[in-house]
Amino acid sequence: MTAATRSEHDLLGDREVPADAYWGVHTLRATENFPITGTPISAYPHLIEALAAVKEAAALANEELGLLEPAKAAAIVTACREIRGGKLHDQFVVDVLQGGAGTSTNMNANEVVANRALELLGHARGEYRHLHPNEDVNLGQSTNDVYPTAVRIATVRAVHGLLDAMGVLQEAFARKAREFHDVLKMGRTQLQDAVPMTLGQEFSAFAVMLDEDRSRLAEAVELIHEINLGATAIGTGLNAPAGYAESARRHLAEITGLPLVTAADLVEATQDCGAFVQMSGVLKRIAVKLSKTCNDLRLLSSGPRAGLGEINLPPVQAGSSIMPGKVNPVIPEVVNQVAFEVIGNDVTVTMAAEAGQLQLNAFEPVILHALSESVTHLRAACLTLAERCVAGITANTEVLRATVENSIGLVTALNPHIGYTAATDIAKEALASGRGVAELVLEKGLLPAETLAALLRPEVIAGTGASAT
Amino acid sequence: MTAATRSEHDLLGDREVPADAYWGVHTLRATENFPITGTPISAYPHLIEALAAVKEAAALANEELGLLEPAKAAAIVTACREIRGGKLHDQFVVDVLQGGAGTSTNMNANEVVANRALELLGHARGEYRHLHPNEDVNLGQSTNDVYPTAVRIATVRAVHGLLDAMGVLQEAFARKAREFHDVLKMGRTQLQDAVPMTLGQEFSAFAVMLDEDRSRLAEAVELIHEINLGATAIGTGLNAPAGYAESARRHLAEITGLPLVTAADLVEATQDCGAFVQMSGVLKRIAVKLSKTCNDLRLLSSGPRAGLGEINLPPVQAGSSIMPGKVNPVIPEVVNQVAFEVIGNDVTVTMAAEAGQLQLNAFEPVILHALSESVTHLRAACLTLAERCVAGITANTEVLRATVENSIGLVTALNPHIGYTAATDIAKEALASGRGVAELVLEKGLLPAETLAALLRPEVIAGTGASAT
Amino acid sequence: MTAATRSEHDLLGDREVPADAYWGVHTLRATENFPITGTPISAYPHLIEALAAVKEAAALANEELGLLEPAKAAAIVTACREIRGGKLHDQFVVDVLQGGAGTSTNMNANEVVANRALELLGHARGEYRHLHPNEDVNLGQSTNDVYPTAVRIATVRAVHGLLDAMGVLQEAFARKAREFHDVLKMGRTQLQDAVPMTLGQEFSAFAVMLDEDRSRLAEAVELIHEINLGATAIGTGLNAPAGYAESARRHLAEITGLPLVTAADLVEATQDCGAFVQMSGVLKRIAVKLSKTCNDLRLLSSGPRAGLGEINLPPVQAGSSIMPGKVNPVIPEVVNQVAFEVIGNDVTVTMAAEAGQLQLNAFEPVILHALSESVTHLRAACLTLAERCVAGITANTEVLRATVENSIGLVTALNPHIGYTAATDIAKEALASGRGVAELVLEKGLLPAETLAALLRPEVIAGTGASAT
Amino acid sequence: MTAATRSEHDLLGDREVPADAYWGVHTLRATENFPITGTPISAYPHLIEALAAVKEAAALANEELGLLEPAKAAAIVTACREIRGGKLHDQFVVDVLQGGAGTSTNMNANEVVANRALELLGHARGEYRHLHPNEDVNLGQSTNDVYPTAVRIATVRAVHGLLDAMGVLQEAFARKAREFHDVLKMGRTQLQDAVPMTLGQEFSAFAVMLDEDRSRLAEAVELIHEINLGATAIGTGLNAPAGYAESARRHLAEITGLPLVTAADLVEATQDCGAFVQMSGVLKRIAVKLSKTCNDLRLLSSGPRAGLGEINLPPVQAGSSIMPGKVNPVIPEVVNQVAFEVIGNDVTVTMAAEAGQLQLNAFEPVILHALSESVTHLRAACLTLAERCVAGITANTEVLRATVENSIGLVTALNPHIGYTAATDIAKEALASGRGVAELVLEKGLLPAETLAALLRPEVIAGTGASAT
Repeated sequence: MTAATRSEHDLLGDREVPADAYWGVHTLRATENFPITGTPISAYPHLIEALAAVKEAAALANEELGLLEPAKAAAIVTACREIRGGKLHDQFVVDVLQGGAGTSTNMNANEVVANRALELLGHARGEYRHLHPNEDVNLGQSTNDVYPTAVRIATVRAVHGLLDAMGVLQEAFARKAREFHDVLKMGRTQLQDAVPMTLGQEFSAFAVMLDEDRSRLAEAVELIHEINLGATAIGTGLNAPAGYAESARRHLAEITGLPLVTAADLVEATQDCGAFVQMSGVLKRIAVKLSKTCNDLRLLSSGPRAGLGEINLPPVQAGSSIMPGKVNPVIPEVVNQVAFEVIGNDVTVTMAAEAGQLQLNAFEPVILHALSESVTHLRAACLTLAERCVAGITANTEVLRATVENSIGLVTALNPHIGYTAATDIAKEALASGRGVAELVLEKGLLPAETLAALLRPEVIAGTGASAT
Repeated sequence: MTAATRSEHDLLGDREVPADAYWGVHTLRATENFPITGTPISAYPHLIEALAAVKEAAALANEELGLLEPAKAAAIVTACREIRGGKLHDQFVVDVLQGGAGTSTNMNANEVVANRALELLGHARGEYRHLHPNEDVNLGQSTNDVYPTAVRIATVRAVHGLLDAMGVLQEAFARKAREFHDVLKMGRTQLQDAVPMTLGQEFSAFAVMLDEDRSRLAEAVELIHEINLGATAIGTGLNAPAGYAESARRHLAEITGLPLVTAADLVEATQDCGAFVQMSGVLKRIAVKLSKTCNDLRLLSSGPRAGLGEINLPPVQAGSSIMPGKVNPVIPEVVNQVAFEVIGNDVTVTMAAEAGQLQLNAFEPVILHALSESVTHLRAACLTLAERCVAGITANTEVLRATVENSIGLVTALNPHIGYTAATDIAKEALASGRGVAELVLEKGLLPAETLAALLRPEVIAGTGASAT
Repeated sequence: MTAATRSEHDLLGDREVPADAYWGVHTLRATENFPITGTPISAYPHLIEALAAVKEAAALANEELGLLEPAKAAAIVTACREIRGGKLHDQFVVDVLQGGAGTSTNMNANEVVANRALELLGHARGEYRHLHPNEDVNLGQSTNDVYPTAVRIATVRAVHGLLDAMGVLQEAFARKAREFHDVLKMGRTQLQDAVPMTLGQEFSAFAVMLDEDRSRLAEAVELIHEINLGATAIGTGLNAPAGYAESARRHLAEITGLPLVTAADLVEATQDCGAFVQMSGVLKRIAVKLSKTCNDLRLLSSGPRAGLGEINLPPVQAGSSIMPGKVNPVIPEVVNQVAFEVIGNDVTVTMAAEAGQLQLNAFEPVILHALSESVTHLRAACLTLAERCVAGITANTEVLRATVENSIGLVTALNPHIGYTAATDIAKEALASGRGVAELVLEKGLLPAETLAALLRPEVIAGTGASAT
Repeated sequence: MTAATRSEHDLLGDREVPADAYWGVHTLRATENFPITGTPISAYPHLIEALAAVKEAAALANEELGLLEPAKAAAIVTACREIRGGKLHDQFVVDVLQGGAGTSTNMNANEVVANRALELLGHARGEYRHLHPNEDVNLGQSTNDVYPTAVRIATVRAVHGLLDAMGVLQEAFARKAREFHDVLKMGRTQLQDAVPMTLGQEFSAFAVMLDEDRSRLAEAVELIHEINLGATAIGTGLNAPAGYAESARRHLAEITGLPLVTAADLVEATQDCGAFVQMSGVLKRIAVKLSKTCNDLRLLSSGPRAGLGEINLPPVQAGSSIMPGKVNPVIPEVVNQVAFEVIGNDVTVTMAAEAGQLQLNAFEPVILHALSESVTHLRAACLTLAERCVAGITANTEVLRATVENSIGLVTALNPHIGYTAATDIAKEALASGRGVAELVLEKGLLPAETLAALLRPEVIAGTGASAT
């Protein structure tokens, strides 16, 4: 007994597709043509939902303009809503990396929606004379406006998840900043002891960095709300009648709840990937700063006995298969790795965007792939870092205070009183002799004891941040 | 006879410096330590002027707060104004790539300003007991706030030059878009013939891309106006008295005419390179799109006989040392190369930013170097492209029109009337037989001749851009 | 009813693991700590097999040195062979991106091998007092030598697959080069018509490029055969007795059939990722040239009517959801995208390698991930390109020959006879007037008709390659 | 009075060039067309010398084949030898970034050589009827073989300088490795205390890394010896008679002393940039490892009181304009920055190589620029690091020994004797209580005192490197 099939036809001839498949001949060929990553687009649920939303909006617009019979439109809309509700995702089987600017993704969507709509209308799958993937579901559309529009909506959704996760991480740092508000420590520049500060200031900086990055990300995602639906093939809107672009946009905005706008110049919008390059650049910025933050956390917690030992990261697993008792900063380490991935993805996006030619960029699938990976991995990294690391960080308060009291950097506070030149001599002697700064200043009679004591109070030194004035 | 020298002293001991040098011992050591690129910072006049502006603003603030004698302040201010006016730039001799987060650049500035101020006060160079590079010129400052502040001001200046150049190029494209408003041609997706458009639409897209990029660049440069002057060593403002940061910022804003603001959190601002990463990301975006544009120009002008031959770039030099009469698209080619450089520089900036540790990023000199190169080369590329290429482009109108009339892509316009399936059959037959679309439609009686003629009017097809509705 | 569990213990306390799991408490914690990509290491079968091979080799070495009871060794060896045979892969559940330099991967392997060996010995899973994941399976090992050794073996395996696929593609191009041996066409430099050549020469160059790249890849994979097994934690070989490193290497070489060598300096080898950076650089080189090749294929097949139209790629799917009959170069397009991915991955590998600190690089998991993706996607891309595109390419011989006969570039062949200056004048006039080169030369009496005819025979012009002399 | 000029003619018409210029009309136009970087090619002396070598070799080959009169050949050869001897470099004025695949560079060379040869023959500059830049100096050549050949020779020269500098740095590290042979310290993995080693082993690893990198660089430079001279325009050797390619290669090999070989397939060689991509990838590898080494040096020397303080870098300049006595690791810091630059340049080279089209890569000038910068900056960085940093490093022997004796990591050595589980308990208790490992083992009676003492001798632990067995 062979599996039941149905026959479908395209430009290249006839092919048998499984009778129970909602996808059709175009999808079949695409799965044969692109055995590249093994990852089907169903692994990108935001994208599948966005595709369904676009198809739904187009059907409503087409109905409104009298181009699509109400019964067909209703069936399409119902099918799309089912998909948006999570159904039939397993029918989206084409590889995420595909030639053709997303044509196979769009064809896959057209076929699944058409066949489900046919079912709803009481027809068998494949009976396209009743409702056609290209002529009805894709009516007034082209891959070249459908695919980028769906990618944009999917990206907006994913970025909102990232913004939330960054907020969680920011608040975790801010909470620690408050907890460590009074913990004195040496600040360092170029890994050399500089001048005193508080551990609270250090953690506050991590929170502030995230806050700035969230602002930049929110700005970048704004640009993604600009769509080119109605552009059809190259932006001239061929086959999309007057009023269609605006109607489809309005329906899509309602369906998604997003403040979508239609690009002012559709020819430009159809070939341009600038908003994705910008988004990727901002994701890279976030990666850069997350990585720097994790580098700091790993450095500050180095030890336990031969390191800086200023803070303790919560142990989350045994650190070594050979060294008993060793605990490693594995959470910051995995975040570093995500950052390196995001930075690499930015180069991928850059090259793909640069390679666009004339009226279209054929390489948007790899842009989708790279952006999606960057956003979702960054989101996971932020949440993991917040929950499994930052929340449990403790400070070695005594160790930290001792480094301040023992430091040569305190001499900087004397500059205005004894001058840079004399202070340099004190610093050199302290370093060479192992003695303390205060002791030497007193011995040389450079300042009275009381003045000196007042100047060298670490709290005073650390507390005069201009930001605090 | 040996050249005259004077003796100077620092942490490491005594050294002879040329008697006529305005720089001193710190600068001397830096030139010995960093024989890397051979490019002195004097090659960055925006930076030298910005350093002088910062030193002038600090002197005025210090005088205002009673920390610096009016006579000293006046001499420093005069010296700085001379430097801002273009004098003494040759005294800025340290290598642009230097360890130390810009310390050698700041030291070089302190020494040049001090020695010029000493002269103005009637003293000899090197008589630092009267006016000291660190104690007076650098009063209330640290490299860690002076250098990034100067880099930011220099970057703002350079970016304004780039914005202007992009405007020139945008207008050159816009002018051509108007000139080519009625020139019909085939649009292409994935290098395959798609549907008709006008050459004006194509050139307009180039202009619109630049316009968007200018908006993004203008946003990114806004972030660069945030400075950390007053942060001193690590952002705690040590040795900068109350009121200093605000006074220095106010004077610096007046001197430069820029709307500078002091960062809200100076600890964060002192270690953060986010605004530079963002700027570099936007420069990369501009590079990506300029490169895509130049790729298109080269492709459209390919030929003269075995290429697309749609447009002609103005010949600007003989193209070959061996092939007589060959003229090459050398101007777009050099712009492509600048784009590749900018994209590489973005990776350099990214790595340098990621490598910052704890309270400081020690790698700002290479960020300055990379950003400065990107901005100035992009500016030159835009102007060259506008003036030596775009302004002289002409269209091969007949060739273009013929490709439309001869095209199979016209069949797309029949979709709504004969359906995607029937249209596919027509297209296949046209391709195989070499015949025309209209001819075949008529032969098969799919549409009446009049209807067909109306549908296939290229002007109609190209002119229905949704953007035009 | 709750699912059955067993209790396991580690540094952090007791945890319940599913009774039927072969993995244990360390794996459990890792899955909780790293919810990053959702891709378990079981998705990397080469890695799982390589881990089992390393564990098997270590057990044999330990037995040989009298450190492990024969019964335990036998059980471990049997378990490892089962895994190498494809069993239990689903038990390798930790995320491919993980902190800890691969510790969780190594722990996962230790636990699965131990529990399967326990079963083989008649004990229940988790009864580690009979055979312990760390004390027996990991005996004489550390993650820091096991993980990189396994990654190297997995990489060698994957690269062999890539080398084969590149060979298939090379042969496909070579076959076309032979087929197109006599097809004359215009060569182009800078997209401008240059001088004649054959299409065979053009396709031969694609084959030669691949051949060179295969040589480079074969050299790079040689370096990957150098392992650090026996280095244990930091390369000092602590807890690995004399003879262990050599014995383990010998067994591993036998098991894998690979000519593995032990690094001369294990401290260096344990911290160094140079061979991975080199490998990634060569993969990038391959990507660059594959991408260039695909760009050329897409350009040469542009059309069908408004493009170069020199060759035809076999149609593999309908190209457009809106433009009937359109066929796109989707196979080269997907290969371009893989190339962009590989180039991005190279930056990821670069950053991860640079971030290593002191005696270890903690970021090898992302190096594994990136390298593995690059190698497997390149392999798929090469095979797809060979089978679904290159094999079916046809030439438009008449079109090609016409461009040669019509070309101005023929004039180059007259340089030695009439001089560059006179030839330039002919070229200019031909271009301006639309006339032919030969016609003008004759008209001006610059050469006798016979001489001219002999010089301008395209076969002569194209056939005089110095390489052919 | 106006400056004297002479009139020259090209494809575009007549232009006045300065009478005393050795360059001519083609160079003039190029300087006007490419006002991009401001850096003339004269800043690349290796390139100028290589161009002269190529022109000399071609003249000798042409004379040998009877194509060039002996008197002309002699004059050209003499002119080229003068240039190779350092003369007339100031006449190479075109911008290093230029469109046209190096045509302007080749034209500049042709003109300078021709005019100097004319002088030698007793003619005035510009009297090209006696000896012509294109017809005589460029005889049998094209930019497309001359320029890449010259770039390759220049690159080989520069790389030899880098190999030497890497050798100097390697020896500096090796010397320190010997000096620190007996200095015990804690090894660290993931910044956490691991097991003991010696500082000598640590520095030896730095030396070994450089040694490996030198081997890879030497391999990569071998590939650069393959040239395409004789390929002329597109590799078909048009206008280069039989025997020319071999004769020119032989003369060039003699002139340069380099084992040059002619590529087997000149069509492929003329369009391929693979060897440059490979070279750039190896330079990136060197950069990655130099950067990692410098990160380590900065970390190990952190302090002086609140850092690891294991080693001391020699002070080379005052570290801060505000913090007296501060000394920073400025030499490693500048090397890090060079590394970031090289890594960025690799992306530039990658993009330029990928952008090649059909028979030529038009973007070789930016490849030259990027490679040249990477090689020369890396060379300077290696020498500076060797001489101004590594040579003067000292160890804080007591501090280092104390960290070993105090360490918990010693417990690893007990694994084979008390088991991983028991050792884990000891480690946990030591960490929690602040007590020593030995003390706890004795207290619990896990091992006899003598055995324990023997096992815990740090020299034993650190000295058992498998590499040493």
